[in-house]
Amino acid sequence: MARETIKILGIDTSLRSTGVGIIEARGSELRAVAYGRIRNKPKVPHSLCLENIFSSITDLIEAHQPDCAAIEGAFFAKNANTAMVLGQARGVAIAACAKKGLEITEHSPRKVKSAIVGTGTAQKDQVAKMVVRLLNLAEQPQEDAADALAIAICHHHQLSLPEELRAKRI
Amino acid sequence: MARETIKILGIDTSLRSTGVGIIEARGSELRAVAYGRIRNKPKVPHSLCLENIFSSITDLIEAHQPDCAAIEGAFFAKNANTAMVLGQARGVAIAACAKKGLEITEHSPRKVKSAIVGTGTAQKDQVAKMVVRLLNLAEQPQEDAADALAIAICHHHQLSLPEELRAKRI
Repeated sequence: MARETIKILGIDTSLRSTGVGIIEARGSELRAVAYGRIRNKPKVPHSLCLENIFSSITDLIEAHQPDCAAIEGAFFAKNANTAMVLGQARGVAIAACAKKGLEITEHSPRKVKSAIVGTGTAQKDQVAKMVVRLLNLAEQPQEDAADALAIAICHHHQLSLPEELRAKRI
Repeated sequence: MARETIKILGIDTSLRSTGVGIIEARGSELRAVAYGRIRNKPKVPHSLCLENIFSSITDLIEAHQPDCAAIEGAFFAKNANTAMVLGQARGVAIAACAKKGLEITEHSPRKVKSAIVGTGTAQKDQVAKMVVRLLNLAEQPQEDAADALAIAICHHHQLSLPEELRAKRI
Protein backbone atom coordinates (compact mmCIF):
# COMPACT_ATOMS: atom_id res chain seq x y z
CA MET A 1 0.00 0.00 0.00
CA ALA A 2 1.23 3.44 -0.90
CA ARG A 3 -0.76 5.12 1.83
CA GLU A 4 0.40 4.91 5.42
CA THR A 5 -3.07 4.53 6.91
CA ILE A 6 -6.26 3.13 5.44
CA LYS A 7 -9.81 3.16 6.76
CA ILE A 8 -12.02 0.21 5.84
CA LEU A 9 -15.79 -0.06 6.25
CA GLY A 10 -17.03 -3.62 6.79
CA ILE A 11 -20.73 -4.42 6.33
CA ASP A 12 -22.68 -7.53 7.33
CA THR A 13 -26.12 -6.95 5.81
CA SER A 14 -29.54 -8.18 6.80
CA LEU A 15 -32.92 -6.45 6.61
CA ARG A 16 -33.53 -6.17 10.36
CA SER A 17 -29.99 -5.89 11.72
CA THR A 18 -27.10 -4.80 9.50
CA GLY A 19 -23.70 -4.85 11.23
CA VAL A 20 -21.28 -2.06 10.39
CA GLY A 21 -17.69 -1.56 11.49
CA ILE A 22 -14.92 0.81 10.47
CA ILE A 23 -11.29 -0.01 11.20
CA GLU A 24 -8.17 2.04 10.64
CA ALA A 25 -4.94 0.28 9.72
CA ARG A 26 -1.53 1.84 10.11
CA GLY A 27 0.78 -0.80 8.68
CA SER A 28 -0.23 -3.94 10.55
CA GLU A 29 -1.56 -2.01 13.53
CA LEU A 30 -5.37 -2.01 13.62
CA ARG A 31 -7.89 -0.02 15.60
CA ALA A 32 -11.69 0.19 15.59
CA VAL A 33 -12.99 3.62 14.59
CA ALA A 34 -16.72 2.93 14.94
CA TYR A 35 -19.04 -0.07 14.98
CA GLY A 36 -22.62 -0.98 15.69
CA ARG A 37 -25.72 -2.13 13.88
CA ILE A 38 -28.53 -0.62 11.88
CA ARG A 39 -31.72 -2.04 13.31
CA ASN A 40 -35.22 -2.16 11.87
CA LYS A 41 -38.14 -3.19 14.06
CA PRO A 42 -40.11 -6.29 12.96
CA LYS A 43 -43.27 -4.49 11.76
CA VAL A 44 -41.60 -1.69 9.79
CA PRO A 45 -42.35 -2.09 6.03
CA HIS A 46 -39.44 -3.36 3.92
CA SER A 47 -39.25 -0.09 1.96
CA LEU A 48 -38.60 1.93 5.11
CA CYS A 49 -36.06 -0.63 6.37
CA LEU A 50 -34.17 -0.34 3.08
CA GLU A 51 -34.31 3.45 3.21
CA ASN A 52 -32.93 3.33 6.76
CA ILE A 53 -30.03 1.06 5.74
CA PHE A 54 -29.18 3.38 2.84
CA SER A 55 -29.33 6.57 4.92
CA SER A 56 -27.46 5.11 7.91
CA ILE A 57 -24.59 3.83 5.76
CA THR A 58 -24.46 7.18 3.92
CA ASP A 59 -24.28 9.03 7.26
CA LEU A 60 -21.57 6.67 8.51
CA ILE A 61 -19.44 7.24 5.40
CA GLU A 62 -19.87 11.01 5.67
CA ALA A 63 -18.90 10.96 9.35
CA HIS A 64 -15.82 8.73 9.06
CA GLN A 65 -14.71 8.95 5.41
CA PRO A 66 -13.52 5.36 4.91
CA ASP A 67 -11.29 4.65 1.88
CA CYS A 68 -13.04 1.47 0.76
CA ALA A 69 -15.74 -1.00 1.78
CA ALA A 70 -16.02 -4.76 2.16
CA ILE A 71 -19.17 -6.83 2.37
CA GLU A 72 -20.02 -10.44 3.09
CA GLY A 73 -20.82 -12.42 -0.04
CA ALA A 74 -21.14 -15.79 -1.73
CA PHE A 75 -22.96 -17.44 1.14
CA PHE A 76 -25.53 -20.16 0.96
CA ALA A 77 -29.15 -18.94 0.95
CA LYS A 78 -31.80 -21.43 2.05
CA ASN A 79 -34.19 -20.54 -0.74
CA ALA A 80 -34.97 -17.95 -3.41
CA ASN A 81 -37.26 -15.97 -1.11
CA THR A 82 -34.62 -15.60 1.61
CA ALA A 83 -32.06 -14.68 -1.04
CA MET A 84 -34.40 -12.01 -2.43
CA VAL A 85 -34.95 -10.31 0.95
CA LEU A 86 -31.25 -10.43 1.81
CA GLY A 87 -30.35 -9.34 -1.72
CA GLN A 88 -32.48 -6.22 -1.32
CA ALA A 89 -30.67 -5.20 1.86
CA ARG A 90 -27.29 -5.97 0.27
CA GLY A 91 -28.07 -4.01 -2.88
CA VAL A 92 -28.93 -0.96 -0.83
CA ALA A 93 -25.73 -1.20 1.23
CA ILE A 94 -23.65 -1.57 -1.95
CA ALA A 95 -25.40 1.36 -3.68
CA ALA A 96 -24.85 3.60 -0.64
CA CYS A 97 -21.11 2.86 -0.76
CA ALA A 98 -20.90 3.24 -4.55
CA LYS A 99 -22.75 6.56 -4.41
CA LYS A 100 -20.02 7.83 -2.08
CA GLY A 101 -17.34 6.65 -4.53
CA LEU A 102 -16.10 3.71 -2.43
CA GLU A 103 -14.80 0.55 -4.10
CA ILE A 104 -16.58 -2.47 -2.64
CA THR A 105 -15.12 -5.95 -2.34
CA GLU A 106 -16.98 -9.11 -1.42
CA HIS A 107 -15.51 -11.76 0.92
CA SER A 108 -17.13 -15.13 1.58
CA PRO A 109 -18.00 -16.03 5.21
CA ARG A 110 -15.48 -18.87 4.94
CA LYS A 111 -12.70 -16.50 3.90
CA VAL A 112 -13.56 -14.07 6.68
CA LYS A 113 -13.46 -16.84 9.31
CA SER A 114 -10.15 -18.13 7.93
CA ALA A 115 -8.62 -14.65 8.01
CA ILE A 116 -9.69 -14.01 11.60
CA VAL A 117 -9.58 -17.40 13.36
CA GLY A 118 -7.49 -19.47 10.95
CA THR A 119 -10.24 -21.90 10.01
CA GLY A 120 -13.21 -21.48 7.66
CA THR A 121 -15.45 -23.45 10.01
CA ALA A 122 -14.99 -21.23 13.09
CA GLN A 123 -18.02 -20.39 15.24
CA LYS A 124 -19.43 -16.85 15.45
CA ASP A 125 -18.33 -16.48 19.06
CA GLN A 126 -14.74 -17.47 18.20
CA VAL A 127 -14.73 -14.81 15.47
CA ALA A 128 -16.06 -12.17 17.88
CA LYS A 129 -13.43 -13.07 20.51
CA MET A 130 -10.62 -12.76 17.95
CA VAL A 131 -12.01 -9.41 16.77
CA VAL A 132 -11.79 -8.18 20.39
CA ARG A 133 -8.17 -9.32 20.58
CA LEU A 134 -7.09 -8.02 17.16
CA LEU A 135 -8.63 -4.58 17.75
CA ASN A 136 -7.82 -4.48 21.46
CA LEU A 137 -11.44 -3.71 22.35
CA ALA A 138 -12.60 -3.24 25.95
CA GLU A 139 -15.64 -5.47 25.42
CA GLN A 140 -17.08 -7.94 22.91
CA PRO A 141 -19.24 -6.17 20.30
CA GLN A 142 -22.74 -7.38 19.51
CA GLU A 143 -22.62 -10.26 16.99
CA ASP A 144 -23.52 -8.39 13.76
CA ALA A 145 -21.10 -5.57 14.59
CA ALA A 146 -18.35 -8.12 15.33
CA ASP A 147 -19.01 -9.77 11.95
CA ALA A 148 -18.75 -6.40 10.20
CA LEU A 149 -15.42 -5.67 11.93
CA ALA A 150 -14.22 -9.17 10.97
CA ILE A 151 -15.06 -8.46 7.30
CA ALA A 152 -13.08 -5.20 7.48
CA ILE A 153 -10.09 -7.00 9.05
CA CYS A 154 -10.28 -9.75 6.41
CA HIS A 155 -10.24 -7.06 3.71
CA HIS A 156 -7.17 -5.47 5.27
CA HIS A 157 -5.37 -8.85 5.17
CA GLN A 158 -6.04 -9.23 1.48
CA LEU A 159 -4.68 -5.77 0.68
CA SER A 160 -1.21 -7.15 1.42
CA LEU A 161 -1.65 -9.83 -1.27
CA PRO A 162 -0.40 -9.30 -4.82
CA GLU A 163 -3.04 -7.62 -6.98
CA GLU A 164 -3.88 -10.78 -8.96
CA LEU A 165 -4.69 -12.75 -5.81
CA ARG A 166 -7.09 -10.18 -4.39
CA ALA A 167 -10.87 -10.46 -4.60
CA LYS A 168 -12.31 -8.33 -7.37
CA ARG A 169 -14.38 -5.21 -6.90
CA ILE A 170 -18.10 -6.03 -7.15
CA MET B 1 -59.54 9.03 -4.67
CA ALA B 2 -59.77 12.48 -3.15
CA ARG B 3 -57.35 13.96 -5.71
CA GLU B 4 -58.45 14.60 -9.23
CA THR B 5 -55.20 13.47 -10.83
CA ILE B 6 -52.56 11.03 -9.68
CA LYS B 7 -49.11 10.26 -11.06
CA ILE B 8 -47.83 6.70 -10.66
CA LEU B 9 -44.28 5.46 -11.20
CA GLY B 10 -44.07 1.82 -12.33
CA ILE B 11 -40.75 -0.05 -12.09
CA ASP B 12 -39.72 -3.39 -13.60
CA THR B 13 -36.30 -4.02 -12.09
CA SER B 14 -33.33 -5.98 -13.35
CA LEU B 15 -29.61 -5.33 -12.97
CA ARG B 16 -28.86 -4.65 -16.65
CA SER B 17 -32.14 -3.16 -17.84
CA THR B 18 -34.67 -1.69 -15.42
CA GLY B 19 -37.90 -0.50 -17.05
CA VAL B 20 -39.47 2.68 -15.72
CA GLY B 21 -42.75 4.34 -16.63
CA ILE B 22 -44.76 7.19 -15.20
CA ILE B 23 -48.47 7.54 -15.97
CA GLU B 24 -50.90 10.27 -15.02
CA ALA B 25 -54.51 9.34 -14.32
CA ARG B 26 -57.34 11.85 -14.38
CA GLY B 27 -60.32 9.77 -13.31
CA SER B 28 -60.20 6.79 -15.68
CA GLU B 29 -58.31 8.72 -18.37
CA LEU B 30 -54.66 7.68 -18.54
CA ARG B 31 -51.63 9.17 -20.24
CA ALA B 32 -47.93 8.32 -20.28
CA VAL B 33 -45.75 11.06 -18.78
CA ALA B 34 -42.35 9.42 -19.32
CA TYR B 35 -40.97 5.95 -19.90
CA GLY B 36 -37.76 4.18 -20.81
CA ARG B 37 -35.16 1.94 -19.29
CA ILE B 38 -32.08 2.26 -17.11
CA ARG B 39 -29.36 0.27 -18.85
CA ASN B 40 -26.09 -1.08 -17.51
CA LYS B 41 -23.53 -2.52 -19.91
CA PRO B 42 -22.50 -6.18 -19.38
CA LYS B 43 -19.01 -5.55 -17.97
CA VAL B 44 -19.88 -2.75 -15.53
CA PRO B 45 -19.35 -3.93 -11.90
CA HIS B 46 -22.55 -4.65 -9.95
CA SER B 47 -21.88 -1.83 -7.50
CA LEU B 48 -21.86 0.78 -10.28
CA CYS B 49 -24.98 -0.74 -11.87
CA LEU B 50 -26.78 -0.47 -8.54
CA GLU B 51 -25.61 3.11 -8.06
CA ASN B 52 -26.86 3.95 -11.56
CA ILE B 53 -30.30 2.45 -10.84
CA PHE B 54 -30.53 4.41 -7.59
CA SER B 55 -29.46 7.72 -9.13
CA SER B 56 -31.59 7.35 -12.28
CA ILE B 57 -34.75 6.61 -10.29
CA THR B 58 -33.99 9.51 -7.93
CA ASP B 59 -33.57 11.85 -10.94
CA LEU B 60 -36.79 10.58 -12.51
CA ILE B 61 -38.74 11.20 -9.29
CA GLU B 62 -37.28 14.70 -8.96
CA ALA B 63 -38.13 15.52 -12.58
CA HIS B 64 -41.72 14.23 -12.58
CA GLN B 65 -42.82 14.17 -8.92
CA PRO B 66 -44.96 11.01 -8.97
CA ASP B 67 -47.38 10.48 -6.04
CA CYS B 68 -46.60 6.81 -5.49
CA ALA B 69 -44.68 3.87 -6.94
CA ALA B 70 -45.47 0.29 -7.92
CA ILE B 71 -43.01 -2.52 -8.53
CA GLU B 72 -43.18 -6.07 -9.82
CA GLY B 73 -43.06 -8.64 -7.07
CA ALA B 74 -43.75 -12.19 -5.95
CA PHE B 75 -42.36 -13.83 -9.07
CA PHE B 76 -40.65 -17.14 -9.38
CA ALA B 77 -36.85 -16.99 -9.27
CA LYS B 78 -34.97 -19.91 -10.82
CA ASN B 79 -32.47 -20.18 -7.98
CA ALA B 80 -31.05 -18.39 -4.95
CA ASN B 81 -28.27 -16.77 -6.95
CA THR B 82 -30.63 -15.25 -9.52
CA ALA B 83 -32.88 -14.09 -6.69
CA MET B 84 -29.93 -12.45 -4.96
CA VAL B 85 -28.86 -10.45 -8.04
CA LEU B 86 -32.43 -9.39 -8.82
CA GLY B 87 -33.06 -8.67 -5.13
CA GLN B 88 -30.13 -6.25 -5.08
CA ALA B 89 -31.54 -4.27 -8.02
CA ARG B 90 -35.02 -4.31 -6.51
CA GLY B 91 -33.79 -3.17 -3.09
CA VAL B 92 -32.07 -0.20 -4.64
CA ALA B 93 -35.17 0.80 -6.65
CA ILE B 94 -37.33 0.51 -3.52
CA ALA B 95 -34.88 2.53 -1.39
CA ALA B 96 -34.70 5.29 -4.03
CA CYS B 97 -38.51 5.62 -3.94
CA ALA B 98 -38.69 5.43 -0.13
CA LYS B 99 -35.99 8.08 0.22
CA LYS B 100 -38.20 10.42 -1.82
CA GLY B 101 -41.15 9.66 0.47
CA LEU B 102 -43.12 7.56 -2.04
CA GLU B 103 -45.29 4.67 -0.88
CA ILE B 104 -44.38 1.54 -2.83
CA THR B 105 -46.76 -1.29 -3.66
CA GLU B 106 -45.83 -4.66 -5.11
CA HIS B 107 -47.93 -6.38 -7.79
CA SER B 108 -47.31 -9.92 -9.02
CA PRO B 109 -46.65 -10.46 -12.76
CA ARG B 110 -49.88 -12.47 -12.87
CA LYS B 111 -51.90 -9.62 -11.40
CA VAL B 112 -50.33 -7.12 -13.79
CA LYS B 113 -51.16 -9.29 -16.82
CA SER B 114 -54.73 -9.80 -15.56
CA ALA B 115 -55.21 -6.07 -15.06
CA ILE B 116 -53.94 -5.21 -18.54
CA VAL B 117 -54.95 -8.11 -20.80
CA GLY B 118 -57.59 -9.85 -18.71
CA THR B 119 -55.64 -13.08 -18.22
CA GLY B 120 -52.71 -13.87 -15.93
CA THR B 121 -51.07 -16.01 -18.60
CA ALA B 122 -50.83 -13.26 -21.28
CA GLN B 123 -47.64 -13.00 -23.34
CA LYS B 124 -45.29 -10.00 -23.02
CA ASP B 125 -46.17 -8.78 -26.50
CA GLN B 126 -49.90 -8.84 -25.73
CA VAL B 127 -49.23 -6.75 -22.60
CA ALA B 128 -47.16 -4.24 -24.61
CA LYS B 129 -49.88 -3.94 -27.28
CA MET B 130 -52.55 -3.27 -24.64
CA VAL B 131 -50.30 -0.67 -22.97
CA VAL B 132 -50.09 1.13 -26.35
CA ARG B 133 -53.87 1.10 -26.63
CA LEU B 134 -54.63 2.09 -23.02
CA LEU B 135 -52.18 5.00 -23.09
CA ASN B 136 -52.84 5.91 -26.71
CA LEU B 137 -49.13 5.77 -27.57
CA ALA B 138 -47.81 6.48 -31.07
CA GLU B 139 -45.53 3.42 -30.96
CA GLN B 140 -44.89 0.30 -28.93
CA PRO B 141 -42.37 0.95 -26.12
CA GLN B 142 -39.37 -1.31 -25.61
CA GLU B 143 -40.34 -4.41 -23.58
CA ASP B 144 -39.02 -3.40 -20.11
CA ALA B 145 -40.53 0.08 -20.42
CA ALA B 146 -43.87 -1.45 -21.51
CA ASP B 147 -43.78 -3.74 -18.45
CA ALA B 148 -43.12 -0.74 -16.18
CA LEU B 149 -46.06 1.16 -17.69
CA ALA B 150 -48.22 -1.98 -17.27
CA ILE B 151 -47.30 -2.12 -13.55
CA ALA B 152 -48.29 1.55 -13.16
CA ILE B 153 -51.64 0.93 -14.94
CA CYS B 154 -52.26 -2.14 -12.76
CA HIS B 155 -51.62 -0.03 -9.69
CA HIS B 156 -54.09 2.60 -10.90
CA HIS B 157 -56.76 -0.11 -11.29
CA GLN B 158 -56.32 -1.25 -7.74
CA LEU B 159 -56.67 2.28 -6.34
CA SER B 160 -60.36 2.07 -7.21
CA LEU B 161 -60.75 -1.02 -4.99
CA PRO B 162 -61.90 -0.75 -1.37
CA GLU B 163 -58.92 -0.23 0.98
CA GLU B 164 -59.06 -3.78 2.40
CA LEU B 165 -58.73 -5.37 -1.05
CA ARG B 166 -55.69 -3.37 -2.11
CA ALA B 167 -52.16 -4.73 -2.02
CA LYS B 168 -50.24 -3.55 1.03
CA ARG B 169 -47.35 -1.11 0.99
CA ILE B 170 -44.07 -2.96 1.03
